[in-house]
Amino acid sequence: MRALPQPQPEDFDLATVMHALGDPVRLELVRRLAAEGETTCSPEGLTVPRSTLSNHWRILREAGAITVRVSGKTRLVTLRRAELDARFPLLLRAVLDEIAASGSGR
Amino acid sequence: MRALPQPQPEDFDLATVMHALGDPVRLELVRRLAAEGETTCSPEGLTVPRSTLSNHWRILREAGAITVRVSGKTRLVTLRRAELDARFPLLLRAVLDEIAASGSGR
Repeated sequence: MRALPQPQPEDFDLATVMHALGDPVRLELVRRLAAEGETTCSPEGLTVPRSTLSNHWRILREAGAITVRVSGKTRLVTLRRAELDARFPLLLRAVLDEIAASGSGR
Repeated sequence: MRALPQPQPEDFDLATVMHALGDPVRLELVRRLAAEGETTCSPEGLTVPRSTLSNHWRILREAGAITVRVSGKTRLVTLRRAELDARFPLLLRAVLDEIAASGSGR
């Protein structure tokens, strides 16, 4: 499998990461990745057009939030949690705690 | 003075707040408000067109991040820190810590 291009942790930018997380669909994708680990790029139960979903994955990947690995027609997505936590301590926890508490993004 | 319309804390939305903070100029505005307290809506040293700045303030206000009070031609802005902290524990701290650590948004 090869990984699609993604930034190194030292190039993570706070505004870019906040923007990537500033959308209810992308928050839901991140919530699922945090809860379920590696997933395909076509999660069940999301009523989002395929091209829109693809755009959401790209924004998350380019911000450094996820890794996308490609093999043939399969795309597997993981959250870069350790790298995000190392670069932005508390941020992902604050976001995931709020989603868990409120059901936001679900 | 009268305050411009703003959401109640129970109507704060995580994705909307993240989006409001997902811009380098808005992060810088929030950093200044956190450091300096109440400011006018025309902070010094920002090379941002007036209409763009006005739009940034509106996005922050509509997300619940700031209060804007108006008296004649004067607009005074404050960060709704206590309300944000109560609704999204850790979030603002995570953001402000990162800005302080990296100089992001400056």
